[in-house]
Amino acid sequence: MNQQQLFGQIQKKRSFLCVGLDTDILIIPKHLLDTSDPIFVFNKEIIDATAEYSVAYKPNLAFYESLGSKGWESLEKTVHYVREKYPDLFLIADAKRGDIGNTSNLYARAFFEKMDFDAVTVAPYMGEDSVKPFMTYLDKWVILLALTSNKGAADFQYLKDEKTSDQIFESVLKTSQSWGTPENMMYVVGATKAEKLKEIRQIVPDHFLLVPGVGAQGGSLQEVAKNGMNSKCGLLVNSSRGIIYASKDEDFAEKAGEAAKEVQHEMEVLLKEAGLF
Amino acid sequence: MNQQQLFGQIQKKRSFLCVGLDTDILIIPKHLLDTSDPIFVFNKEIIDATAEYSVAYKPNLAFYESLGSKGWESLEKTVHYVREKYPDLFLIADAKRGDIGNTSNLYARAFFEKMDFDAVTVAPYMGEDSVKPFMTYLDKWVILLALTSNKGAADFQYLKDEKTSDQIFESVLKTSQSWGTPENMMYVVGATKAEKLKEIRQIVPDHFLLVPGVGAQGGSLQEVAKNGMNSKCGLLVNSSRGIIYASKDEDFAEKAGEAAKEVQHEMEVLLKEAGLF
Repeated sequence: MNQQQLFGQIQKKRSFLCVGLDTDILIIPKHLLDTSDPIFVFNKEIIDATAEYSVAYKPNLAFYESLGSKGWESLEKTVHYVREKYPDLFLIADAKRGDIGNTSNLYARAFFEKMDFDAVTVAPYMGEDSVKPFMTYLDKWVILLALTSNKGAADFQYLKDEKTSDQIFESVLKTSQSWGTPENMMYVVGATKAEKLKEIRQIVPDHFLLVPGVGAQGGSLQEVAKNGMNSKCGLLVNSSRGIIYASKDEDFAEKAGEAAKEVQHEMEVLLKEAGLF
Repeated sequence: MNQQQLFGQIQKKRSFLCVGLDTDILIIPKHLLDTSDPIFVFNKEIIDATAEYSVAYKPNLAFYESLGSKGWESLEKTVHYVREKYPDLFLIADAKRGDIGNTSNLYARAFFEKMDFDAVTVAPYMGEDSVKPFMTYLDKWVILLALTSNKGAADFQYLKDEKTSDQIFESVLKTSQSWGTPENMMYVVGATKAEKLKEIRQIVPDHFLLVPGVGAQGGSLQEVAKNGMNSKCGLLVNSSRGIIYASKDEDFAEKAGEAAKEVQHEMEVLLKEAGLF
């Protein structure tokens, strides 16, 4: 999916919601455990109930890997299901990968060929040759970690480069721009740092930003929109637990749908205020 | 496996060789493609031929993931095989993971519970809470990326912190020491930067270092040993392609054994010179 198509979906659904599929076998409703693939069944029902209100889904790889090869099967089935039934959804592998070039090549093969994801989250520590292999696929995306929403973000991302006085996350934003374009790169920017979004928008005015940390982690959607929106929206705001675990009973899908609908309504107001539809 | 046991294995085998299982379906000998699980069969034969000369094995996750859930199955079978037949081998998941705390918890579950690895490589960008969940398991290890062997290492790892004038990889070494101990942390230090090893040893005198980049990537084993060895050896030197692809014909396992034996001989000399057995 390219940038214009993604913006088209945002306008059509009046939503820039990304639903995080942090599907935990220990948390999903107990009645699903009797099915042959509880993780897939949970995802399928969540997607069916929320697809009307969401433009993107973001399975978090750790949850699937914690179940080994069976978990990977559930993930593959989820991606296949979305591709068959909802071809216009944007699928993000939240995998935080990154390794030397020939290895990143294989991660790209895993997520873009073996599975048909649109985007992969990538950690920047190993630099250009660890990131670029993900950008050799037409209409596929790297989503590079810039500023994360966790406490440990302060350990290295806030250090200042002696030469430029840029913080490291700013160096990541600036340096990486020569690696790709707003057509194949996005950035992860935690919503708990909404006040930083304004500065970040000055560095990367045109790129989409994937914003986790709204809801359970405490970020405000209004603040994010105010500081981060651009002329093509430029935001995918992720919510995981607030939506997929809105209820832990048999009505989990219905409640997830309601929670997603509520977020979509807020987003519709924000998009309208910005004159984007 | 704890530090003393690892050093014991190094003394017993007179080797600090780690064999990288970068097992690529496109490269392994063609006659294996007729078996039901070529990746596992290749790994099994390589391990049988080289276990006498190696203390550690390091499957690179990207190679397995590029084959999807089937690849994960081959990996699980490989780990299981080693645990059954060679319980004294040290197993490293070269996965370069790292995410917010509750997600890193699940990656730890994947590699330490679902599969019985001894260690996982972790990227430091997200800081303390992304790393610590891997250190809550007795005798399991984090191997934190410090200085990598690729060209892109220069993009961010070499930037200097304005406050301390430390390069970022030095900040990673210094800051992370309060997160764990030489009993549950190692560091990745690329061998192509052997001259840096001396400086790094001053910062982390007691930690084991995992050193990739010897052989195919151009590093010298003698230089690494001269600059990096400590009183418990403190080194695991990885070789992947130089060993596992020593031959691409039916004699691949035999040739891999010969290549590993050759490296082990070099290592024996270096360990002897250092008075370590």
